[in-house]
Amino acid sequence: MNSVKKTVICGGTHGDELTGVYLAKKHGWLLANPAAAAVRRRYVDRDLNRCFALSELNATGTGNSLELARAREINELLGKKGSETAPDLILDIHNTTANMGITLILSSEHPALLQISAVLAKEFSNIRIYMQKESRDESPYIGTIAKTDVCIEAGPQPHGTLSAELFFDVERVVLRFLELVEAWNNGNLPKREFETFTEMRNIDYPRDEQGNITAMVHPALQGKDFCELKAGMPIFLGFDGKEILWQGETCYPAFINEAAYYEKGIAMSLTRYNKCVL
Amino acid sequence: MNSVKKTVICGGTHGDELTGVYLAKKHGWLLANPAAAAVRRRYVDRDLNRCFALSELNATGTGNSLELARAREINELLGKKGSETAPDLILDIHNTTANMGITLILSSEHPALLQISAVLAKEFSNIRIYMQKESRDESPYIGTIAKTDVCIEAGPQPHGTLSAELFFDVERVVLRFLELVEAWNNGNLPKREFETFTEMRNIDYPRDEQGNITAMVHPALQGKDFCELKAGMPIFLGFDGKEILWQGETCYPAFINEAAYYEKGIAMSLTRYNKCVL
Repeated sequence: MNSVKKTVICGGTHGDELTGVYLAKKHGWLLANPAAAAVRRRYVDRDLNRCFALSELNATGTGNSLELARAREINELLGKKGSETAPDLILDIHNTTANMGITLILSSEHPALLQISAVLAKEFSNIRIYMQKESRDESPYIGTIAKTDVCIEAGPQPHGTLSAELFFDVERVVLRFLELVEAWNNGNLPKREFETFTEMRNIDYPRDEQGNITAMVHPALQGKDFCELKAGMPIFLGFDGKEILWQGETCYPAFINEAAYYEKGIAMSLTRYNKCVL
Repeated sequence: MNSVKKTVICGGTHGDELTGVYLAKKHGWLLANPAAAAVRRRYVDRDLNRCFALSELNATGTGNSLELARAREINELLGKKGSETAPDLILDIHNTTANMGITLILSSEHPALLQISAVLAKEFSNIRIYMQKESRDESPYIGTIAKTDVCIEAGPQPHGTLSAELFFDVERVVLRFLELVEAWNNGNLPKREFETFTEMRNIDYPRDEQGNITAMVHPALQGKDFCELKAGMPIFLGFDGKEILWQGETCYPAFINEAAYYEKGIAMSLTRYNKCVL
């Protein structure tokens, strides 16, 4: 029943997210984007973690970015997305400038992932479980090479830096994850209650007609990832000093003020909170 | 006596230090590196804030980096380093990932700078005065175009992000600085006591024979900019978990774990503390 035999751990999918870069080097895990890591940038030509849609991996003659070429190389190396030889599980280690602690982003409701994550959330006080379902074939993330995957987001940490505390926290979580995969395969995982945050949608910064941002995350919201946001609470603060209040539904934002998402038009991701029992 | 008539304020000398980028846009101050700001990177080809040595500005035929070309353009625009038409004062706004509050880096002991900074340090609790004397001609910093200059370092803020709190703090400091320049010119500045931190030297991360870092800033030192560091206190923590203790003289580190300084081989800058009376 759904046993997880072949697990791959990777870091440095974004070259300036140094927890994964140095954990991969320390443990011999896959350093996904060594060229970007060498120049301490997220990517060289384009975001590697947006290159893994099957149609891009399998297209010919369009691969003149360093990252798409690397994506195809990784796909070959790991056993090919969508095939029998693909890994059962990929753990991909990321950092965020948002105050997200250690967030396990699950791309499916695979029972092993849910049960392992539930155990980890009990064992580590700063772990959150974030549900972001992916239709696998055309999903662009590296983890979707595998039959299922977890993206580990650790923060807050400025890109291009290392927090020693976070480095050892993430290391402990990954090593414990691997133990729990074994326990799952042996049928030894207890069922338990757990909390999840399910992605609803992203929201952008306020912008002017030229597309320039006109406001910043409000100081009252900064660092408040996974806290309740209700209508009437401040969300942005304009460069002119004017407050902008949230007018939508009650939700739990994450990725608040993530550096890499300014270029993607994302100020934060909104989630809804659930209590689950396995 | 030493009156300060022509003052230039600039931001975005590093394109991913967004406090200065957006303050420059808001107030019409000089946006020093718009090309780097457009791609949210420190620089495109090379660090603009290392391009202002007179020998580089005046050389011919060697300017095939975007930043050196821009440095020469700025030099023309502002009235030429070393000449009579150069500005009296440049305020250059930067960010750091280090916990440095608002640090005023003074490149000289110009009495106006000392007295204005002393007043600001009384008025704003998070201001520090950092002495880093520059021999002006061959100093590579943008501020050295002017007869004297202050580099404003604001942090902690991850590069590529905006902290609303820091944005308005820095704005208040710069606008107050300009008022105090007027007061200085009118002879209306009180003398007072103040504290300074004088740069002694930089220290690098521990590295292996290939030049790769082997340790991180110790969690006990992280965020402790301008706090006393004495022999025997932990300074680094190896990827292997081994602590490294400080063995040098008592000092006050700053720029601790600054993202942009990994590539420059700087883990922190050591300073010594002084009390001064004007």
